[in-house]
Amino acid sequence: MSVKTVLVTGAYGFIGRHVARCFGEKGWRVAGLGHGSWTPEERQPWHVSDWHSCDITMETLITYADEPDVFVHCAGSGSVGFSVSHPHQDFQRTVETTIHSLEFLRLYLPRTIFIYPSSAGVYGIAPIFPIKEDSVLAPVSPYGVHKKIAEELIRSYSAQFDIRSAIIRLFSVYGEGLRKQLLWDTCNKITNGENRFYGTGNETRDLLHVNDAASLLYHVTDHASQACPVFNGGVGKGILIRDIIQEVYHCFSTINHPIFTGEGKRGDPIHYEADTSRTLALGWQPTVNWRSGIKNYVEWFKSDSRT
Amino acid sequence: MSVKTVLVTGAYGFIGRHVARCFGEKGWRVAGLGHGSWTPEERQPWHVSDWHSCDITMETLITYADEPDVFVHCAGSGSVGFSVSHPHQDFQRTVETTIHSLEFLRLYLPRTIFIYPSSAGVYGIAPIFPIKEDSVLAPVSPYGVHKKIAEELIRSYSAQFDIRSAIIRLFSVYGEGLRKQLLWDTCNKITNGENRFYGTGNETRDLLHVNDAASLLYHVTDHASQACPVFNGGVGKGILIRDIIQEVYHCFSTINHPIFTGEGKRGDPIHYEADTSRTLALGWQPTVNWRSGIKNYVEWFKSDSRT
Repeated sequence: MSVKTVLVTGAYGFIGRHVARCFGEKGWRVAGLGHGSWTPEERQPWHVSDWHSCDITMETLITYADEPDVFVHCAGSGSVGFSVSHPHQDFQRTVETTIHSLEFLRLYLPRTIFIYPSSAGVYGIAPIFPIKEDSVLAPVSPYGVHKKIAEELIRSYSAQFDIRSAIIRLFSVYGEGLRKQLLWDTCNKITNGENRFYGTGNETRDLLHVNDAASLLYHVTDHASQACPVFNGGVGKGILIRDIIQEVYHCFSTINHPIFTGEGKRGDPIHYEADTSRTLALGWQPTVNWRSGIKNYVEWFKSDSRT
Repeated sequence: MSVKTVLVTGAYGFIGRHVARCFGEKGWRVAGLGHGSWTPEERQPWHVSDWHSCDITMETLITYADEPDVFVHCAGSGSVGFSVSHPHQDFQRTVETTIHSLEFLRLYLPRTIFIYPSSAGVYGIAPIFPIKEDSVLAPVSPYGVHKKIAEELIRSYSAQFDIRSAIIRLFSVYGEGLRKQLLWDTCNKITNGENRFYGTGNETRDLLHVNDAASLLYHVTDHASQACPVFNGGVGKGILIRDIIQEVYHCFSTINHPIFTGEGKRGDPIHYEADTSRTLALGWQPTVNWRSGIKNYVEWFKSDSRT
């Protein structure tokens, strides 16, 4: 049997590179397209054999995409704050790259499976916890609106043009190498002797280690269909932000304590907790416990600061 | 008091030109932007004093839009069939022109009111009739999906960036000058001695005369807000397609009768009937009875064929 190939857009990004490595470790040939200056030596540990640094457009896809069995569209916006300050660019990164990818598949590779890592940001202010995939979607930031729109386009193309697809709504993906968001900010604050944090600490996040996220994206390729099934990508635990931050403090063995200011951040929903029953029914399971995940993250952060 | 100005994108189109004339007749200065070769003499009866034939992009808007009090975004796709054969182009016409318009207002004219004629196509297969504005949206064609996405962007920009807007979901807009859709096809078939029609004849359409549609778009400018209210643009009557076609036959005084093949057209929902209670509460009322509207249409068609 010939080697299967996967195209990962945004493969230079945090989730994209872990997805690339996950497929590579299973023996797939991995090609990547997206932004980022990446030498063959640097991308070798991520199993990316071909890398094209370019925008994701019909033109670049026609030129470089080849004929993958699976197309994982990791390119897109990754920041709520950016979407509020630059809504049109956020739209271009998330929505326009998606429709170009779909149109490319419709015209040239209608048998390729399309996998989309969406975001729990599409849920917005959910009325019921844990959040099921068929909840009402009420995103509260342009970031969430644009991810929702990307999902609608995938569903539309799948139904109209028989493209097999699946959507995974990722909750709070974290792991060694992530230089933004809650763990990164907390590590930096502790290092700088700052102890003030947004919110009350009673907000919750469903932490999913990036290796588990990548294995889930790999796993759902077997379940893609014209019906475009949607799966939550989370562990199924809403952990208090107070407990997450406290755990980071613990790993730093600092005598300080976090202080919560009570102020919210614009565009950030307060609570996240995935209902994972549909995802677990696929046979996939998360493997990283959040406390050990944080421990590893802090060790990486410390060694990264020293280099 | 200074003269108010309105910018109408897609003003060369069927709905756009009637919107232009409606504002013009109320004393507004009307500028237009969009596709179409239009001489000053030809556009004079439509009250369009400035016309720029161009794509709707940030660049053209910055160059030509001036500082309107109201921005009516009539540009966009107008065909379900086209959206199935050319989904990406349909997306560009409907969604990309909308986000460029919104971004233009956000950056340069945040006080301008944005009015969007959307389509009842966003409802798709509605479970309950008459259709209320808060029904579940389940569009069945790329056309409907893209109008829904345009709506979501307007709602997002209104909520995030305080742009006052309103959306009107137009049902089956018709009137003298419309060279496509049901009445046009029926007149042509009768003229050519054809009598076969898609469907069973028991499908329904809510016919809204284009003058009433334009007056509704004018009327809602007073009700635009950051909450982006949505109003159905229909008469509130689901008329059998059999009866509509029969009325056209009657106006032609032909002895033939229509024959329905029973086949459906892809992407066309079967039934339409607007719940107009929210719209009527604004004080707006439709003025054209559908039978007299069809009579006028057929007279126009006959005189148009003779010229």
